[in-house]
Amino acid sequence: MDGGLRGVDHRSQAISNGPMFSLSELASLVGGEVVGPEDTVVSGIAPFDSAGPGDITLAAGAKYLRSLETCPAAAAIVPRHADSPAKPLLRVENPRLAFALILDRFTRQPFDPLGISPLASIGRDCRIAERVSIHPFVALGRNVVVEEEVTVGPGTSVGDDCRIGRGSTLHANVTLYPGVRLGANVVIHSGTVIGADGFGYVFDGTRQVKIAQTGCVEIGDEVEIGANCCVDRATFGATVIERHVKMDNLVHIGHNCRIGENTIIVGCVGVSGSVEIGRNCVVAGQAGFADHVKVGDGAKIYARAAVFKDVPSGGEVSGVPAQDNRRELKMQAALRRLPEWMERRRRSGE
Amino acid sequence: MDGGLRGVDHRSQAISNGPMFSLSELASLVGGEVVGPEDTVVSGIAPFDSAGPGDITLAAGAKYLRSLETCPAAAAIVPRHADSPAKPLLRVENPRLAFALILDRFTRQPFDPLGISPLASIGRDCRIAERVSIHPFVALGRNVVVEEEVTVGPGTSVGDDCRIGRGSTLHANVTLYPGVRLGANVVIHSGTVIGADGFGYVFDGTRQVKIAQTGCVEIGDEVEIGANCCVDRATFGATVIERHVKMDNLVHIGHNCRIGENTIIVGCVGVSGSVEIGRNCVVAGQAGFADHVKVGDGAKIYARAAVFKDVPSGGEVSGVPAQDNRRELKMQAALRRLPEWMERRRRSGE
Amino acid sequence: MDGGLRGVDHRSQAISNGPMFSLSELASLVGGEVVGPEDTVVSGIAPFDSAGPGDITLAAGAKYLRSLETCPAAAAIVPRHADSPAKPLLRVENPRLAFALILDRFTRQPFDPLGISPLASIGRDCRIAERVSIHPFVALGRNVVVEEEVTVGPGTSVGDDCRIGRGSTLHANVTLYPGVRLGANVVIHSGTVIGADGFGYVFDGTRQVKIAQTGCVEIGDEVEIGANCCVDRATFGATVIERHVKMDNLVHIGHNCRIGENTIIVGCVGVSGSVEIGRNCVVAGQAGFADHVKVGDGAKIYARAAVFKDVPSGGEVSGVPAQDNRRELKMQAALRRLPEWMERRRRSGE
Repeated sequence: MDGGLRGVDHRSQAISNGPMFSLSELASLVGGEVVGPEDTVVSGIAPFDSAGPGDITLAAGAKYLRSLETCPAAAAIVPRHADSPAKPLLRVENPRLAFALILDRFTRQPFDPLGISPLASIGRDCRIAERVSIHPFVALGRNVVVEEEVTVGPGTSVGDDCRIGRGSTLHANVTLYPGVRLGANVVIHSGTVIGADGFGYVFDGTRQVKIAQTGCVEIGDEVEIGANCCVDRATFGATVIERHVKMDNLVHIGHNCRIGENTIIVGCVGVSGSVEIGRNCVVAGQAGFADHVKVGDGAKIYARAAVFKDVPSGGEVSGVPAQDNRRELKMQAALRRLPEWMERRRRSGE
Repeated sequence: MDGGLRGVDHRSQAISNGPMFSLSELASLVGGEVVGPEDTVVSGIAPFDSAGPGDITLAAGAKYLRSLETCPAAAAIVPRHADSPAKPLLRVENPRLAFALILDRFTRQPFDPLGISPLASIGRDCRIAERVSIHPFVALGRNVVVEEEVTVGPGTSVGDDCRIGRGSTLHANVTLYPGVRLGANVVIHSGTVIGADGFGYVFDGTRQVKIAQTGCVEIGDEVEIGANCCVDRATFGATVIERHVKMDNLVHIGHNCRIGENTIIVGCVGVSGSVEIGRNCVVAGQAGFADHVKVGDGAKIYARAAVFKDVPSGGEVSGVPAQDNRRELKMQAALRRLPEWMERRRRSGE
Repeated sequence: MDGGLRGVDHRSQAISNGPMFSLSELASLVGGEVVGPEDTVVSGIAPFDSAGPGDITLAAGAKYLRSLETCPAAAAIVPRHADSPAKPLLRVENPRLAFALILDRFTRQPFDPLGISPLASIGRDCRIAERVSIHPFVALGRNVVVEEEVTVGPGTSVGDDCRIGRGSTLHANVTLYPGVRLGANVVIHSGTVIGADGFGYVFDGTRQVKIAQTGCVEIGDEVEIGANCCVDRATFGATVIERHVKMDNLVHIGHNCRIGENTIIVGCVGVSGSVEIGRNCVVAGQAGFADHVKVGDGAKIYARAAVFKDVPSGGEVSGVPAQDNRRELKMQAALRRLPEWMERRRRSGE
């Protein structure tokens, strides 16, 4: 299950015993230009330090370009204006992107439908497409929709009324609470919980009274969510993760949040309830957000920032409480000078 | 499974196709007073911005009260002395609390026992009440006690000698290690692990020697624990979560802690071993506690605080290391002025 | 399953109804010296405050030594030069270590193989040793190797091509992705996910393009990993957790990291990609590490430190960004005086 390791030889760290491509084929895949014989064939792809003969490798920086001669790789992905007589080159605008695209070409497996395991439990009124892989010990509730080319890993639980879009993968031991809707090509890693109750209580003077969480979670196309994350259902309405969002491990998204398209959320981030984060943002590791904060498009939230107030589009914030990053850096620099500053003044008799 | 979504129409964000209540019924439920026709009937409840005709809504602030006329809701929950000619009112002492109670009235489902799934695995010497819902792929160890009206979701594992009190719900993919005891009406969300070993080792000069974790975990009545949390067993004795404690997602509670009644712990909090937190405390998101710290009743621990020493009853602390919140605020204010302060002094030739 | 509670009486907090040992037996187990009758027999072990007659207890500090007379324990583990007429003593170099070793002696159970549950799902080409315990709802993929005396708890999923070394325990609801290799006597607690994809994307101007994660995870002998942790697979090559590493709960280890022998990682720590942490380090709670950071052997990373640059061997760092701990303490001390300092200067007319 869970695919992806066929064709990988761990010792050489190269992707090898699969398909082979000519440089001209790869150039048309990534929009690049070949320098040297266009019919050079590569049978694998590997990073610079572990590439072997037959591999294409990545040589994005000057340091790597200078060492190309001693690298046994058959060819190298290089920046647009780079040159080297050492071996055939694939010149591209964005070498890392080209590397990712070619790596994907080497590793992507055609979907291989295993069908529905006889050890899965399927509730009534489910609509399950023909070509799916539903592994042992999967529990689907009632009225679940599973579209074509969906994989549901062992031990995953899908609540009533969920919908899993075409091409999506739920790895092992994922939990979807009732009413969660996933778009196409969504990937949810193991241990992640989507749709648990939002955290809302009112104190009545004696005890905490729960506010029922009646909403749902909607996850857009091509979203990938790491392992052991939580995305809570909305109190009313929906918690929304827009398409192409990518989340790392152990991220918490509270009820009624909206995370905009293409936004990246790195590991161990905590997002409280009703937070709105725009498109194309980057939220770095262990950052946190207070309730109801709004973050504009293209903002950068630095690692460990604690965001207590709105961040404008394109803003870059860091610190606790988070502020404009340049201001935070100045403050940190001043703070680091503070002990000597105080000491000097103390000595000079102030 | 996991209930709660029947009767919810997501588009209108209103709870609607269930029961109907007159304002006088609701007034007696929440201890309120009706202004206008007591026999006004409401068939749903929704927040102000999404309420439709037939709904009761919440208008707690002046802004909402002024807009009541344009809100299509049938009635509104308002503070004790509020007034409006726009529609029938339900005046209460605590409008948010009344909203929670009425929402609960609309959404709460009677327990519907599914029995024990033939796809569950039940160890020997378990005592399981008549009216329970034990879902597929649940593994109960030996000598487990499951009381009336308990739900155990798919894929949940319950170790030997556990006890699950009346009315409790373990959602899907929860893990209880052996010897965990849950009170009545406890809710544990998916992915949460109760009773894993506390973290204790002694270095013998060559390697880390484990201190066996021989204790257990006790969880009081009406406790709710979010998704992907961890509550470790005690080294000796018990880790105790007292009744009515509410924990958000991704919270870690170390071995031998005691968390007092009604205390709220928000997401991503880390509590080391042998920490005692009193009753009616609020611990905000991403806070952390060093070993053996004691926090008095009614204390407030602000978001991201790192608590290295005891906090008195009623104390409010923030910062790293945590200190009295007013002091922390003054310090932060001074720090924010520091770059200009240093610059001014530098220029004035000091 | 999951062992460990047989023979524990929770009320007395003592380990009792199991084996019995004479002090001379225990002395030779831990390399200690008996003061008093060598044939004194103890039937349990308990901390000072809960020890009963028949127990051996720990009296490591002067306070406990003075109170030995009133403690009902049959004997006490004490430091090498301690003395007391109150009861038989077991003098050792490291009392806490001796306590851990004796506790282990009292609680360790012989491996009791349950075989392979008929409710487990075993893929083709698996090689499973004779004496194992594979619980219900375990899903093993293809070509999995399970060595002698391995326990795999309920609901655990093991991907294709994994190897689980002799004597290892995977508790309930663990997930191993394909190709993960565990050494001997590894313990993985519930909810932990090993081998999920590393977090790597390249933005192509429109959307995030995934960098396929083709590597694996290797975990050395005697490693213990807490609950709800994540250890990601490498992009190429392997993420490596060396032998005797101990990790608490909710720890995140990114792709391509290497964690050195004996290193301790406390709860809620986040480690980004390609980080190297040396041997015998201690990483305290909620610390974080930026990509590609290197930490030398024997370093101490204090709680909540945010490590953005390399730490030398033996270094001790704290703060955000992390710096030498003595420097951080001076800075914090200066910062704490800052409000009064500024106020004094303001008043003196500066």
